[in-house]
Amino acid sequence: MVFVMKLSALGERKIIEILKPILDSHEVAVGIGDDCAAIDCGKNYLLITTDMINARTHIPVLANPFQIGWHLVAINLSDIAAKGGTPIGILTAVGLPKDIDIKFAKQLARGMRACADEYKVAVVGGDTKESETITLCGTAIGYVPKNQIMLRTGARVGDIIAVTRDLGKAGSALYAIKHKINPDEAIETLLMISPRIREGIMLARTKSITSSIDISDGLAASIYQLSNLNDVGYAIYVDLIPVSQNAKKLSTKFKVPIEEFCLYSGGDYELLVTVNPKLFSSMKRKVEKNGCKLTQIGIVTKEKRNILIRGKRIALLKNKGYEHFRNFRSEK
Amino acid sequence: MVFVMKLSALGERKIIEILKPILDSHEVAVGIGDDCAAIDCGKNYLLITTDMINARTHIPVLANPFQIGWHLVAINLSDIAAKGGTPIGILTAVGLPKDIDIKFAKQLARGMRACADEYKVAVVGGDTKESETITLCGTAIGYVPKNQIMLRTGARVGDIIAVTRDLGKAGSALYAIKHKINPDEAIETLLMISPRIREGIMLARTKSITSSIDISDGLAASIYQLSNLNDVGYAIYVDLIPVSQNAKKLSTKFKVPIEEFCLYSGGDYELLVTVNPKLFSSMKRKVEKNGCKLTQIGIVTKEKRNILIRGKRIALLKNKGYEHFRNFRSEK
Repeated sequence: MVFVMKLSALGERKIIEILKPILDSHEVAVGIGDDCAAIDCGKNYLLITTDMINARTHIPVLANPFQIGWHLVAINLSDIAAKGGTPIGILTAVGLPKDIDIKFAKQLARGMRACADEYKVAVVGGDTKESETITLCGTAIGYVPKNQIMLRTGARVGDIIAVTRDLGKAGSALYAIKHKINPDEAIETLLMISPRIREGIMLARTKSITSSIDISDGLAASIYQLSNLNDVGYAIYVDLIPVSQNAKKLSTKFKVPIEEFCLYSGGDYELLVTVNPKLFSSMKRKVEKNGCKLTQIGIVTKEKRNILIRGKRIALLKNKGYEHFRNFRSEK
Repeated sequence: MVFVMKLSALGERKIIEILKPILDSHEVAVGIGDDCAAIDCGKNYLLITTDMINARTHIPVLANPFQIGWHLVAINLSDIAAKGGTPIGILTAVGLPKDIDIKFAKQLARGMRACADEYKVAVVGGDTKESETITLCGTAIGYVPKNQIMLRTGARVGDIIAVTRDLGKAGSALYAIKHKINPDEAIETLLMISPRIREGIMLARTKSITSSIDISDGLAASIYQLSNLNDVGYAIYVDLIPVSQNAKKLSTKFKVPIEEFCLYSGGDYELLVTVNPKLFSSMKRKVEKNGCKLTQIGIVTKEKRNILIRGKRIALLKNKGYEHFRNFRSEK
């Protein structure tokens, strides 16, 4: 075999781009490239998504197995949330080294179970295999009424760009871990994430969302993905971004630009949506009445260029975030 | 943390037994412990199954990526087949080392796609992650009419025990790989397996099957699993076992007892079913007319003891087969 190119030179999204035409099936409503696959089931789409995490490359070394188990279930539910879906069940496949303690496996299962219970999802099956490193694979199943599904595609020029809750939680937690500032608390923040299931369902019901993604790879990286898929530009107003308390605190104390925490770091798992501008205000009032905080952070533009606006200054948004194979981010 | 017990001392089935009460959900029709999870969907059950393979522990070192990709899809479809289901789609999550060649990833995807095409299944999604070793996780989705589902439980005293096609293909292939007898051909046999989708659907439609499992862990190991689940015994007539050509040939040439290939080795992926004895003959005629070879190999007994009968000699069946964490079987 001739070695022409290594995966590390490409990055995860490029690899998916290369493999997509080989794998993609046309019988399916929504295939590879969106957060979930959607299968036609009468009035509903059945949503299915799978996500793998490898302890060495995805999990801080101080994390405990309960947190890891929770995280595995939560990140899969987040993909269902991004499509406006109601989750039904979760399956897990767990690869564990031979010499691992049974207590570790039990705590891992308890973490999975706790997250599934929290979001009223059944753990419907699993597989346990031997592996050299701890490798976890989750599959979440859900459904969404066909006329409510929120896809990655659909953003139109003039649409309002909005996010749920606050950003920068994960970015500031990663900073805290790296610099040993309350690392236990930071790991808890990073792993015990809350998938935005309620928010996703509520937003989908308004039928005013034109596109949706979860920002697990970071806000900037997610914007570049959406911009490419929708062939439009994204103009983001930095001052509009809802910043988490901890991100604000660490940004001030350690003089880290807020963009690093809110734009260029992965792990936040909030929803990034584009909204029909005519419907935005009334929709925002409605969902916020039900506890779903939604903040406009920008606008979709015709020119396919993603920019950051701060006061009168305009800068190009950097295509930077967390991507596997390139930004290898192990805490070991 | 106090280290009380290692996974390696337990074996995969024991681990699943320990984790099952933590994970199992009662909202689900069929949860952990069967080949698939089954979710109530009106007239049908939605079947979902997930299976992980780790290249170092599950795949012979000479295997090519196309074969590995095929294998991943095939083993997941086999679980759908064992429940009598029609597969709908397959999702894959692929963990690859940073320094792996893009050609490898492409061939892997081509293998997955080829198997999915062969069985008319859509590849509906995927995930690509960085991992230290090649780790692959597949999820298959299918459906089965509620009154046709074949579970692991349901075997009754007096039922006929039967298997699809021939046994010993994988066992003799493993022997061949180990002893370097046409290893390329043996690897092809071992990995390019044919999940018994057509057979499963046909058998399920007869409504005469009382229990079903795929014998991926080996015939003996599968019998012990069923025996425990059903609280009955299995009496197997060695001379009735349908032995594959290659197993016969190697058994004679190298004086390996045929039991080693057909009973105590994993990887055959045939279906092991129990059948209502009153319906067996007419059912067998019907399915064999449609090309589904089905052979009686024994009978379900009241005494919970699994035995091997050869002529007038009776021996206890050994609880031996392929189980991860204990029988570590790497070709490296």
